[in-house]
Amino acid sequence: MIEELIKLPGIGTKTAERLTFYLLKMPGVEIQNLAQALLDFESKIRFCTLCNNVTDIDPCRVCMDERRDKTTICVVEEPNDLIAIEKTQEYKGLYYVLLGALSPLEGIGPDDIKIKGLMERLREGSIKEVIIATNANVEGEATAMYLINILKPLNIRLTRLAHGLPAGSDLEYADEVTLCRAIEGRREIN
Amino acid sequence: MIEELIKLPGIGTKTAERLTFYLLKMPGVEIQNLAQALLDFESKIRFCTLCNNVTDIDPCRVCMDERRDKTTICVVEEPNDLIAIEKTQEYKGLYYVLLGALSPLEGIGPDDIKIKGLMERLREGSIKEVIIATNANVEGEATAMYLINILKPLNIRLTRLAHGLPAGSDLEYADEVTLCRAIEGRREIN
Repeated sequence: MIEELIKLPGIGTKTAERLTFYLLKMPGVEIQNLAQALLDFESKIRFCTLCNNVTDIDPCRVCMDERRDKTTICVVEEPNDLIAIEKTQEYKGLYYVLLGALSPLEGIGPDDIKIKGLMERLREGSIKEVIIATNANVEGEATAMYLINILKPLNIRLTRLAHGLPAGSDLEYADEVTLCRAIEGRREIN
Repeated sequence: MIEELIKLPGIGTKTAERLTFYLLKMPGVEIQNLAQALLDFESKIRFCTLCNNVTDIDPCRVCMDERRDKTTICVVEEPNDLIAIEKTQEYKGLYYVLLGALSPLEGIGPDDIKIKGLMERLREGSIKEVIIATNANVEGEATAMYLINILKPLNIRLTRLAHGLPAGSDLEYADEVTLCRAIEGRREIN
Protein backbone atom coordinates (compact mmCIF):
# COMPACT_ATOMS: atom_id res chain seq x y z
CA MET A 1 0.00 0.00 0.00
CA ILE A 2 2.76 2.42 1.02
CA GLU A 3 4.70 1.66 -2.15
CA GLU A 4 1.69 2.59 -4.32
CA LEU A 5 0.91 5.78 -2.40
CA ILE A 6 4.50 7.05 -2.61
CA LYS A 7 4.13 7.22 -6.42
CA LEU A 8 1.62 10.10 -6.07
CA PRO A 9 2.95 13.67 -6.21
CA GLY A 10 3.45 15.40 -2.86
CA ILE A 11 3.30 12.13 -0.93
CA GLY A 12 6.54 10.98 0.70
CA THR A 13 7.23 7.99 2.96
CA LYS A 14 5.91 9.70 6.11
CA THR A 15 2.62 10.77 4.56
CA ALA A 16 2.18 7.39 2.86
CA GLU A 17 2.66 5.68 6.23
CA ARG A 18 0.20 8.01 7.92
CA LEU A 19 -2.41 7.42 5.20
CA THR A 20 -1.91 3.67 5.40
CA PHE A 21 -2.38 3.59 9.17
CA TYR A 22 -5.51 5.69 8.69
CA LEU A 23 -6.80 3.15 6.14
CA LEU A 24 -6.27 0.42 8.75
CA LYS A 25 -8.84 2.10 10.98
CA MET A 26 -11.36 2.87 8.23
CA PRO A 27 -14.49 0.68 7.82
CA GLY A 28 -13.96 -1.90 5.05
CA VAL A 29 -16.83 -0.49 3.00
CA GLU A 30 -15.21 2.95 2.79
CA ILE A 31 -11.99 1.44 1.50
CA GLN A 32 -14.04 -0.45 -1.09
CA ASN A 33 -15.75 2.84 -2.10
CA LEU A 34 -12.37 4.51 -2.57
CA ALA A 35 -11.12 1.57 -4.63
CA GLN A 36 -14.30 1.66 -6.75
CA ALA A 37 -13.91 5.43 -7.29
CA LEU A 38 -10.38 4.78 -8.60
CA LEU A 39 -11.58 1.99 -10.88
CA ASP A 40 -14.47 4.11 -12.22
CA PHE A 41 -12.11 7.02 -12.71
CA GLU A 42 -9.68 4.86 -14.63
CA SER A 43 -12.34 3.32 -16.84
CA LYS A 44 -14.65 6.30 -17.42
CA ILE A 45 -12.60 9.50 -17.43
CA ARG A 46 -11.08 10.37 -20.80
CA PHE A 47 -10.21 13.41 -22.84
CA CYS A 48 -12.88 14.96 -25.05
CA THR A 49 -12.02 14.24 -28.70
CA LEU A 50 -13.13 17.75 -29.67
CA CYS A 51 -11.53 19.98 -26.99
CA ASN A 52 -9.27 17.69 -24.85
CA ASN A 53 -11.18 18.60 -21.70
CA VAL A 54 -11.44 15.78 -19.13
CA THR A 55 -14.85 14.19 -19.36
CA ASP A 56 -16.88 11.05 -18.70
CA ILE A 57 -18.87 11.43 -21.92
CA ASP A 58 -17.43 12.15 -25.34
CA PRO A 59 -17.82 14.84 -26.67
CA CYS A 60 -17.78 16.59 -23.27
CA ARG A 61 -20.68 18.52 -21.76
CA VAL A 62 -19.26 21.90 -22.79
CA CYS A 63 -18.85 20.88 -26.44
CA MET A 64 -22.35 19.36 -26.48
CA ASP A 65 -24.10 22.30 -24.78
CA GLU A 66 -26.48 23.76 -27.35
CA ARG A 67 -26.73 27.13 -25.57
CA ARG A 68 -23.05 27.94 -26.03
CA ASP A 69 -21.66 30.19 -28.72
CA LYS A 70 -20.13 27.79 -31.27
CA THR A 71 -18.24 30.52 -33.12
CA THR A 72 -15.78 31.44 -30.34
CA ILE A 73 -13.07 29.18 -29.01
CA CYS A 74 -10.95 29.87 -25.94
CA VAL A 75 -7.52 28.17 -25.95
CA VAL A 76 -6.24 27.20 -22.48
CA GLU A 77 -3.29 25.15 -21.27
CA GLU A 78 -4.99 22.70 -18.88
CA PRO A 79 -8.48 21.50 -17.88
CA ASN A 80 -7.94 23.43 -14.59
CA ASP A 81 -7.84 26.69 -16.56
CA LEU A 82 -11.11 25.82 -18.28
CA ILE A 83 -12.69 25.30 -14.86
CA ALA A 84 -11.33 28.66 -13.63
CA ILE A 85 -12.86 30.48 -16.61
CA GLU A 86 -16.16 28.60 -16.27
CA LYS A 87 -16.40 29.76 -12.65
CA THR A 88 -16.47 33.39 -13.74
CA GLN A 89 -19.63 32.75 -15.84
CA GLU A 90 -18.29 35.48 -18.11
CA TYR A 91 -17.55 33.28 -21.11
CA LYS A 92 -20.17 31.41 -23.13
CA GLY A 93 -18.15 30.01 -26.04
CA LEU A 94 -16.25 26.77 -26.62
CA TYR A 95 -12.79 25.74 -25.37
CA TYR A 96 -9.73 24.01 -26.65
CA VAL A 97 -7.32 22.52 -24.09
CA LEU A 98 -3.68 22.25 -25.24
CA LEU A 99 -2.81 19.84 -22.41
CA GLY A 100 0.46 21.68 -21.81
CA ALA A 101 2.49 24.73 -22.73
CA LEU A 102 5.64 25.22 -24.79
CA SER A 103 8.77 25.05 -22.67
CA PRO A 104 12.10 24.98 -24.52
CA LEU A 105 13.90 24.54 -21.19
CA GLU A 106 11.99 21.34 -20.43
CA GLY A 107 12.12 20.25 -24.07
CA ILE A 108 8.38 20.62 -24.64
CA GLY A 109 7.86 21.69 -28.25
CA PRO A 110 4.79 22.26 -30.48
CA ASP A 111 4.45 18.53 -31.23
CA ASP A 112 4.23 17.68 -27.51
CA ILE A 113 1.03 19.66 -26.95
CA LYS A 114 -2.26 19.49 -28.83
CA ILE A 115 -1.67 22.23 -31.37
CA LYS A 116 -2.36 20.11 -34.46
CA GLY A 117 -5.89 19.32 -33.29
CA LEU A 118 -6.54 23.03 -32.79
CA MET A 119 -5.44 23.80 -36.35
CA GLU A 120 -7.73 21.09 -37.73
CA ARG A 121 -10.61 22.39 -35.66
CA LEU A 122 -10.09 25.94 -36.94
CA ARG A 123 -9.79 24.87 -40.59
CA GLU A 124 -13.37 23.53 -40.41
CA GLY A 125 -14.40 27.19 -40.73
CA SER A 126 -17.13 27.64 -38.11
CA ILE A 127 -14.92 29.53 -35.61
CA LYS A 128 -14.97 33.33 -35.87
CA GLU A 129 -12.81 34.26 -32.83
CA VAL A 130 -9.92 32.55 -31.06
CA ILE A 131 -9.20 33.81 -27.53
CA ILE A 132 -5.68 32.90 -26.41
CA ALA A 133 -5.95 32.30 -22.66
CA THR A 134 -2.57 30.83 -21.76
CA ASN A 135 -1.01 31.67 -18.40
CA ALA A 136 0.81 34.97 -17.88
CA ASN A 137 4.10 33.17 -17.13
CA VAL A 138 7.10 32.34 -19.35
CA GLU A 139 5.65 29.12 -20.80
CA GLY A 140 2.25 30.72 -21.34
CA GLU A 141 3.83 33.67 -23.16
CA ALA A 142 5.92 31.37 -25.36
CA THR A 143 2.83 29.35 -26.22
CA ALA A 144 0.81 32.49 -26.99
CA MET A 145 3.54 33.83 -29.29
CA TYR A 146 3.73 30.52 -31.14
CA LEU A 147 -0.06 30.36 -31.52
CA ILE A 148 -0.27 33.95 -32.76
CA ASN A 149 2.30 33.18 -35.46
CA ILE A 150 0.59 30.08 -36.79
CA LEU A 151 -2.99 31.34 -36.39
CA LYS A 152 -2.54 34.73 -38.06
CA PRO A 153 -2.60 33.37 -41.64
CA LEU A 154 -6.01 31.76 -40.95
CA ASN A 155 -7.73 35.16 -40.98
CA ILE A 156 -9.82 34.48 -37.87
CA ARG A 157 -10.31 37.22 -35.27
CA LEU A 158 -7.52 36.66 -32.73
CA THR A 159 -7.69 38.05 -29.17
CA ARG A 160 -5.82 37.54 -25.94
CA LEU A 161 -6.74 37.84 -22.26
CA ALA A 162 -5.91 41.28 -20.86
CA HIS A 163 -2.76 41.58 -18.78
CA GLY A 164 -2.57 44.33 -16.18
CA LEU A 165 -3.53 45.26 -12.64
CA PRO A 166 -5.37 42.45 -10.81
CA ALA A 167 -8.67 43.36 -9.13
CA GLY A 168 -8.31 45.12 -5.79
CA SER A 169 -4.64 45.93 -6.27
CA ASP A 170 -2.74 49.14 -5.53
CA LEU A 171 -0.37 50.63 -8.11
CA GLU A 172 2.19 51.09 -5.37
CA TYR A 173 2.48 47.35 -4.73
CA ALA A 174 2.21 46.16 -8.34
CA ASP A 175 5.42 44.68 -9.75
CA GLU A 176 7.12 46.59 -12.55
CA VAL A 177 6.30 44.13 -15.33
CA THR A 178 2.60 44.18 -14.44
CA LEU A 179 2.60 47.97 -14.32
CA CYS A 180 4.43 48.16 -17.67
CA ARG A 181 1.77 45.97 -19.26
CA ALA A 182 -1.00 47.99 -17.65
CA ILE A 183 0.45 51.16 -19.19
CA GLU A 184 1.16 49.82 -22.67
CA GLY A 185 -2.16 47.94 -22.70
CA ARG A 186 -4.19 50.92 -21.53
CA ARG A 187 -7.73 50.92 -22.83
CA GLU A 188 -9.51 53.59 -24.74
CA ILE A 189 -12.64 54.86 -22.96
CA ASN A 190 -15.51 55.60 -25.31
CA MET B 1 9.62 61.90 23.30
CA ILE B 2 7.38 58.84 23.65
CA GLU B 3 4.26 61.01 23.46
CA GLU B 4 5.42 62.52 20.15
CA LEU B 5 6.41 59.17 18.61
CA ILE B 6 3.07 57.55 19.46
CA LYS B 7 1.35 60.05 17.14
CA LEU B 8 3.00 58.40 14.12
CA PRO B 9 1.08 55.65 12.30
CA GLY B 10 2.05 52.09 13.18
CA ILE B 11 3.87 53.14 16.35
CA GLY B 12 2.30 52.08 19.63
CA THR B 13 3.52 52.51 23.21
CA LYS B 14 5.90 49.53 23.07
CA THR B 15 7.56 50.61 19.82
CA ALA B 16 7.78 54.23 20.98
CA GLU B 17 9.51 53.08 24.17
CA ARG B 18 11.92 50.90 22.25
CA LEU B 19 12.77 53.76 19.86
CA THR B 20 13.26 56.16 22.76
CA PHE B 21 15.62 53.81 24.58
CA TYR B 22 17.52 53.40 21.32
CA LEU B 23 17.79 57.20 21.00
CA LEU B 24 19.28 57.28 24.51
CA LYS B 25 22.22 55.23 23.27
CA MET B 26 22.70 57.12 20.01
CA PRO B 27 25.51 59.70 19.65
CA GLY B 28 24.17 63.24 20.15
CA VAL B 29 25.18 64.31 16.66
CA GLU B 30 23.02 61.62 15.05
CA ILE B 31 20.00 62.76 17.00
CA GLN B 32 20.72 66.30 15.83
CA ASN B 33 20.93 65.06 12.22
CA LEU B 34 17.55 63.37 12.56
CA ALA B 35 16.05 66.53 14.05
CA GLN B 36 17.55 68.64 11.26
CA ALA B 37 16.16 66.23 8.62
CA LEU B 38 12.70 66.70 10.13
CA LEU B 39 13.08 70.50 10.19
CA ASP B 40 14.32 70.58 6.59
CA PHE B 41 11.52 68.26 5.56
CA GLU B 42 8.96 70.49 7.23
CA SER B 43 10.32 73.70 5.72
CA LYS B 44 11.31 72.52 2.23
CA ILE B 45 8.94 69.78 1.11
CA ARG B 46 5.75 71.03 -0.50
CA PHE B 47 3.31 70.00 -3.20
CA CYS B 48 3.99 71.00 -6.80
CA THR B 49 1.52 73.70 -7.82
CA LEU B 50 1.14 72.10 -11.26
CA CYS B 51 0.75 68.39 -10.46
CA ASN B 52 0.54 68.07 -6.62
CA ASN B 53 3.57 65.79 -6.53
CA VAL B 54 5.76 66.15 -3.41
CA THR B 55 8.78 68.26 -4.26
CA ASP B 56 11.47 70.54 -2.88
CA ILE B 57 11.33 72.85 -5.90
CA ASP B 58 8.17 74.24 -7.47
CA PRO B 59 7.20 73.29 -10.18
CA CYS B 60 8.56 69.81 -9.51
CA ARG B 61 11.33 68.10 -11.49
CA VAL B 62 8.87 66.01 -13.54
CA CYS B 63 6.83 69.05 -14.61
CA MET B 64 10.03 70.98 -15.47
CA ASP B 65 11.68 68.15 -17.43
CA GLU B 66 11.97 69.35 -21.02
CA ARG B 67 12.37 65.84 -22.43
CA ARG B 68 8.93 64.71 -21.29
CA ASP B 69 5.85 64.55 -23.49
CA LYS B 70 3.77 67.57 -22.46
CA THR B 71 0.64 66.39 -24.27
CA THR B 72 -0.09 63.35 -22.10
CA ILE B 73 -1.10 63.46 -18.45
CA CYS B 74 -1.37 60.46 -16.15
CA VAL B 75 -3.80 60.89 -13.23
CA VAL B 76 -2.77 59.00 -10.06
CA GLU B 77 -4.08 58.98 -6.51
CA GLU B 78 -0.89 59.57 -4.50
CA PRO B 79 2.76 60.57 -5.02
CA ASN B 80 3.64 56.91 -4.26
CA ASP B 81 1.79 55.85 -7.40
CA LEU B 82 3.74 58.36 -9.48
CA ILE B 83 6.97 56.86 -8.13
CA ALA B 84 5.76 53.32 -8.97
CA ILE B 85 5.02 54.33 -12.58
CA GLU B 86 8.32 56.23 -12.90
CA LYS B 87 10.19 53.08 -11.84
CA THR B 88 8.84 51.19 -14.86
CA GLN B 89 10.47 53.77 -17.24
CA GLU B 90 7.55 52.99 -19.55
CA TYR B 91 5.83 56.37 -19.32
CA LYS B 92 7.31 59.65 -20.54
CA GLY B 93 4.45 62.11 -20.10
CA LEU B 94 3.31 64.35 -17.25
CA TYR B 95 1.37 63.46 -14.10
CA TYR B 96 -1.43 64.83 -12.01
CA VAL B 97 -1.73 63.68 -8.39
CA LEU B 98 -5.24 63.76 -6.91
CA LEU B 99 -3.92 63.43 -3.34
CA GLY B 100 -6.67 60.97 -2.53
CA ALA B 101 -9.50 58.92 -3.96
CA LEU B 102 -13.28 59.18 -3.71
CA SER B 103 -14.68 57.18 -0.82
CA PRO B 104 -18.36 57.68 -0.01
CA LEU B 105 -17.95 55.39 3.02
CA GLU B 106 -15.28 57.63 4.52
CA GLY B 107 -17.08 60.77 3.36
CA ILE B 108 -14.40 61.74 0.82
CA GLY B 109 -16.15 63.48 -2.07
CA PRO B 110 -14.96 65.23 -5.25
CA ASP B 111 -14.23 68.47 -3.37
CA ASP B 112 -11.89 66.71 -0.94
CA ILE B 113 -9.43 65.66 -3.62
CA LYS B 114 -7.69 67.79 -6.26
CA ILE B 115 -10.14 67.34 -9.13
CA LYS B 116 -10.74 71.06 -9.74
CA GLY B 117 -7.07 71.68 -10.45
CA LEU B 118 -7.10 68.85 -12.98
CA MET B 119 -10.06 70.37 -14.81
CA GLU B 120 -8.33 73.76 -14.95
CA ARG B 121 -5.16 72.12 -16.22
CA LEU B 122 -7.04 70.32 -18.98
CA ARG B 123 -8.98 73.39 -20.07
CA GLU B 124 -5.67 75.06 -20.97
CA GLY B 125 -5.82 72.89 -24.10
CA SER B 126 -2.29 71.48 -24.45
CA ILE B 127 -3.19 67.98 -23.18
CA LYS B 128 -4.12 65.43 -25.87
CA GLU B 129 -4.47 62.27 -23.73
CA VAL B 130 -5.51 61.65 -20.12
CA ILE B 131 -4.52 58.27 -18.68
CA ILE B 132 -6.59 57.36 -15.64
CA ALA B 133 -4.25 55.41 -13.37
CA THR B 134 -6.19 55.08 -10.13
CA ASN B 135 -5.86 51.92 -8.05
CA ALA B 136 -7.82 48.79 -9.00
CA ASN B 137 -9.69 48.81 -5.66
CA VAL B 138 -13.15 50.17 -4.73
CA GLU B 139 -12.02 53.78 -4.15
CA GLY B 140 -9.88 53.79 -7.28
CA GLU B 141 -12.79 52.47 -9.36
CA ALA B 142 -15.17 55.08 -7.95
CA THR B 143 -12.65 57.82 -8.70
CA ALA B 144 -12.10 56.53 -12.25
CA MET B 145 -15.86 56.45 -12.92
CA TYR B 146 -16.26 59.99 -11.64
CA LEU B 147 -13.33 61.23 -13.73
CA ILE B 148 -14.61 59.52 -16.87
CA ASN B 149 -17.97 61.25 -16.45
CA ILE B 150 -16.60 64.75 -16.02
CA LEU B 151 -13.75 64.40 -18.54
CA LYS B 152 -15.75 62.94 -21.42
CA PRO B 153 -17.30 66.28 -22.49
CA LEU B 154 -13.79 67.79 -22.84
CA ASN B 155 -13.15 65.76 -26.00
CA ILE B 156 -9.65 64.71 -24.98
CA ARG B 157 -8.48 61.14 -25.65
CA LEU B 158 -9.28 59.23 -22.46
CA THR B 159 -7.56 55.95 -21.56
CA ARG B 160 -7.27 53.76 -18.52
CA LEU B 161 -4.61 51.35 -17.21
CA ALA B 162 -5.31 47.77 -18.30
CA HIS B 163 -6.86 45.46 -15.71
CA GLY B 164 -6.25 41.73 -16.04
CA LEU B 165 -3.80 38.95 -15.26
CA PRO B 166 -0.71 40.18 -13.40
CA ALA B 167 2.68 39.17 -14.85
CA GLY B 168 3.77 35.63 -14.02
CA SER B 169 0.33 34.52 -12.87
CA ASP B 170 -1.58 31.30 -13.58
CA LEU B 171 -5.22 31.38 -14.67
CA GLU B 172 -5.96 28.67 -12.16
CA TYR B 173 -5.02 30.88 -9.20
CA ALA B 174 -6.44 34.17 -10.49
CA ASP B 175 -9.46 35.43 -8.56
CA GLU B 176 -12.77 35.53 -10.42
CA VAL B 177 -13.01 39.31 -10.72
CA THR B 178 -9.52 39.53 -12.25
CA LEU B 179 -10.33 36.72 -14.67
CA CYS B 180 -13.64 38.38 -15.61
CA ARG B 181 -11.81 41.60 -16.44
CA ALA B 182 -9.15 39.71 -18.37
CA ILE B 183 -11.87 38.12 -20.51
CA GLU B 184 -13.99 41.23 -21.11
CA GLY B 185 -10.88 43.34 -21.67
CA ARG B 186 -9.27 40.87 -24.07
CA ARG B 187 -7.07 42.51 -26.65
CA GLU B 188 -7.24 42.27 -30.37
CA ILE B 189 -4.03 40.87 -31.92
CA ASN B 190 -3.10 42.54 -35.19
